[in-house]
Amino acid sequence: MAGGPPELSPQEIADAVGGTLSWGEGARALDHLASVERLSRGYPEAGSAVVVVPSEQELAPLAGAPVLPGLLVLGAVAGLEGPLAALPTVRVGEPRLALARLSALLDARPRPFTGEVSATAHVHPAASLGSGVSLEAGSYVGPGASIGDGSYVGPGASVGANAVIGAGCVLHANVTVYDGVTLGARVVLHAGAVIGADGFGYAASPAGAVKIRQLGGVTLADDVEIGANTAVDRGTLDDTVVGARTKIDNLCQVGHNVIIGSDCLVAGMTGIAGSARVGDGVIIGGAVAVSDHVTIGSGARIAGRSGVTKDVPPGETWAGFPARPHRQYARSLYLLERLEDVWRAVKRMERG
Amino acid sequence: MAGGPPELSPQEIADAVGGTLSWGEGARALDHLASVERLSRGYPEAGSAVVVVPSEQELAPLAGAPVLPGLLVLGAVAGLEGPLAALPTVRVGEPRLALARLSALLDARPRPFTGEVSATAHVHPAASLGSGVSLEAGSYVGPGASIGDGSYVGPGASVGANAVIGAGCVLHANVTVYDGVTLGARVVLHAGAVIGADGFGYAASPAGAVKIRQLGGVTLADDVEIGANTAVDRGTLDDTVVGARTKIDNLCQVGHNVIIGSDCLVAGMTGIAGSARVGDGVIIGGAVAVSDHVTIGSGARIAGRSGVTKDVPPGETWAGFPARPHRQYARSLYLLERLEDVWRAVKRMERG
Amino acid sequence: MAGGPPELSPQEIADAVGGTLSWGEGARALDHLASVERLSRGYPEAGSAVVVVPSEQELAPLAGAPVLPGLLVLGAVAGLEGPLAALPTVRVGEPRLALARLSALLDARPRPFTGEVSATAHVHPAASLGSGVSLEAGSYVGPGASIGDGSYVGPGASVGANAVIGAGCVLHANVTVYDGVTLGARVVLHAGAVIGADGFGYAASPAGAVKIRQLGGVTLADDVEIGANTAVDRGTLDDTVVGARTKIDNLCQVGHNVIIGSDCLVAGMTGIAGSARVGDGVIIGGAVAVSDHVTIGSGARIAGRSGVTKDVPPGETWAGFPARPHRQYARSLYLLERLEDVWRAVKRMERG
Repeated sequence: MAGGPPELSPQEIADAVGGTLSWGEGARALDHLASVERLSRGYPEAGSAVVVVPSEQELAPLAGAPVLPGLLVLGAVAGLEGPLAALPTVRVGEPRLALARLSALLDARPRPFTGEVSATAHVHPAASLGSGVSLEAGSYVGPGASIGDGSYVGPGASVGANAVIGAGCVLHANVTVYDGVTLGARVVLHAGAVIGADGFGYAASPAGAVKIRQLGGVTLADDVEIGANTAVDRGTLDDTVVGARTKIDNLCQVGHNVIIGSDCLVAGMTGIAGSARVGDGVIIGGAVAVSDHVTIGSGARIAGRSGVTKDVPPGETWAGFPARPHRQYARSLYLLERLEDVWRAVKRMERG
Repeated sequence: MAGGPPELSPQEIADAVGGTLSWGEGARALDHLASVERLSRGYPEAGSAVVVVPSEQELAPLAGAPVLPGLLVLGAVAGLEGPLAALPTVRVGEPRLALARLSALLDARPRPFTGEVSATAHVHPAASLGSGVSLEAGSYVGPGASIGDGSYVGPGASVGANAVIGAGCVLHANVTVYDGVTLGARVVLHAGAVIGADGFGYAASPAGAVKIRQLGGVTLADDVEIGANTAVDRGTLDDTVVGARTKIDNLCQVGHNVIIGSDCLVAGMTGIAGSARVGDGVIIGGAVAVSDHVTIGSGARIAGRSGVTKDVPPGETWAGFPARPHRQYARSLYLLERLEDVWRAVKRMERG
Repeated sequence: MAGGPPELSPQEIADAVGGTLSWGEGARALDHLASVERLSRGYPEAGSAVVVVPSEQELAPLAGAPVLPGLLVLGAVAGLEGPLAALPTVRVGEPRLALARLSALLDARPRPFTGEVSATAHVHPAASLGSGVSLEAGSYVGPGASIGDGSYVGPGASVGANAVIGAGCVLHANVTVYDGVTLGARVVLHAGAVIGADGFGYAASPAGAVKIRQLGGVTLADDVEIGANTAVDRGTLDDTVVGARTKIDNLCQVGHNVIIGSDCLVAGMTGIAGSARVGDGVIIGGAVAVSDHVTIGSGARIAGRSGVTKDVPPGETWAGFPARPHRQYARSLYLLERLEDVWRAVKRMERG
């Protein structure tokens, strides 16, 4: 993919996002995405830019932009005025999904895949490599480990003994995969992620804490993505599991024996303590703490900065600490703001 | 230890955990630990498995297991029925401690120690290595650093100038030990841990913040274990200190000049700000924040997700934010749940 | 700078900190900083030590110290008694700034800069190195990346394709800089920091989450310092930006599209969610969570462990969760402590 992304016509963009093209005659070739903000500050490459405008709100700053993009992809935008009205447009029902599709089509970032094994990569003789594997300088593949076809192991990334890395995985720089960890296909681990460190388990004894060795592993299913410096601990006896397509953001902690379902989103700095269960399709906000042994039902949503201390039923939205149904949480916030009134009323009544 | 853990007889298991064997005639050799959950799903190696059952509660799922283990290690379990009654059992008073002991005896995970220095490890000519040191590919040992007998430095792990690593330490992959850090014996640092980065200290000046260089170091005493991606900052002038046998979980932050005593447990995502003091035998839950210059007395316990803003007396259990004695915290939670009643009562009284 | 820091006279110290020397005749040469605490425990090198005493409070333990330092740098300290009265002193108005200046003058830590490219550093043929660049063993510089004059890339640190590292930067061990990241001059990245990992952006689709590729980069301006294991995500289309002289502590998360101004201080374990804006000179305490798309005005201060969910006006101090002006927060804490009284009063009034 040398030479960057392809140049696309408005029609090709419309087809790619499943949208309706309103005008495209004579339009310039399009080769990158730009933000409304960047356009409103003016920059020379505007003419070949596609801009996604999800709603009227995002449209406003574009009206005064000194330069105009080559194509507008419009969500819930009523009409265009002034110079914008002359631009070719593609109408879509799901602008965010359109942005996602276009971000892949117009991605000019360098691809890490070289299909080569660096001379300074360390591959244990008892490891096995699939076809087209890229091992960067200073990467490490331990005894018995296997790397699937087309996977990439970045500079300084380490794959422990007997670990199994599926096909098409990307392990960014300085990732650590411990021994006995299993990754499905197309798993992405961002830099500094640590998969399979020991769970935090000790038994009390007269001579101090005695470590419970963590003999399980970790299984990350297909299409899981793990953020930078996030840690997923290995299980005590069985594997800690993250289900297919679940995405976990940066600096999260997933404790030992946790089982997370498929299609979840876990935002940054969230901690899920040991043996918790998270169903499918759960969305957890940032900086959330989930207590050990708690179950969060499928389809539940947890607001940012909550602390979940007991089971959350499927499909419910919970918030606060201790977390409770969102309606109750909102009511409790309301009551807390009335506390001054209550205090004064009580004082008044006690006096008279 | 090639070939995995030894095969043990029920009597050897009983001896190892100091328990009472009730029946062992003809029992098969035992070579691994299994979970009740794994057995309840059925798996072929069941016959050579030891299962630890701490209490009646954990016993229930085993009653219907399609396959049976080779030995039950029982805590507070009254009696066994059905097929379970025919199994050899070992009775113990402390099942968690038994699990810890057995996890070491039956640990089949690959041992990292090779006793070899990889050809791609970088050892500065002015560094010194003890006997039987294992340095993995891409590890780094700086000038003046010393590595104690039998210690292991994993792939990509870095030991800074003049750092002192005791005997029998394990530095997992991509660990960073800065210059001037001192580790006792048998210290374990999990992947991505950073020991000795600069404390966060700046002085205001008209030209902006002026860095206070952090000239102290870090001392981790014998048998300390530090979790993945946890950071322990160096002191400003003196060392930041973590006492013997203290265990700190993943993604924790220990600020500069902090002094933590021995035999503490600090759960994941906890931050201890600069110059705080933590006594001996303190247990701190996950996602706790401890303010700078606060003292937590020996034997205290801090509930998960608390924010400690003032001194905690020895032996007390505190919770909440701002943290207070647990009884007070529980009372305040109770009162908060009564807020709706209070609000309605006040409204009612004001009307009538 | 072999042989450690220079030996300085009391007059030279006074000049360096802009203070008033009261007595210096016959004083010994000074070569290091010591803490009051270390002196109060006694140690042999005391005579060549400088001790900074910001206030009377810090003076007390020194009165009984078994050994005396060579020079006292005094802030708001009225007078000295006993043996301390015989010591040379330097009076300063800003003792913390004096400490910062002296910490640089008397810094005996080994300097990482070697000006050499290690034989095991990996430099892509299409990368460019300035003059006097130090590349440690196992470091990595990708295609198209450039490293400015005199910069240092530590063991196992990785600089991605097309990244631009300014002059005089320090990238400690195991740092990861992704492709397309730009660092100004004298930027310091502590070990394990990850700059430029993908922001957390997905679009919902019937087939599960579709990744929004993160095509922007990260810009860290001159003199930024980033703590250990902190992550700064790349922007979706434009750069995530951290302004000049801003310092971010360990284990922080800066989301995609965030723009932080200059001269800010962000304490450890703080998370700033996507697209938030932080003005200039903002101080954010530890363990704070800032919601996405929120704006914190210049000069604002956010208390530790707050959760900022809406815009904070410039210059204000906010606290709590949801964060509010500090005065309101303090009042709400007061009212919460009165809740027991309110409850009892309501009970009493209902009865009578």
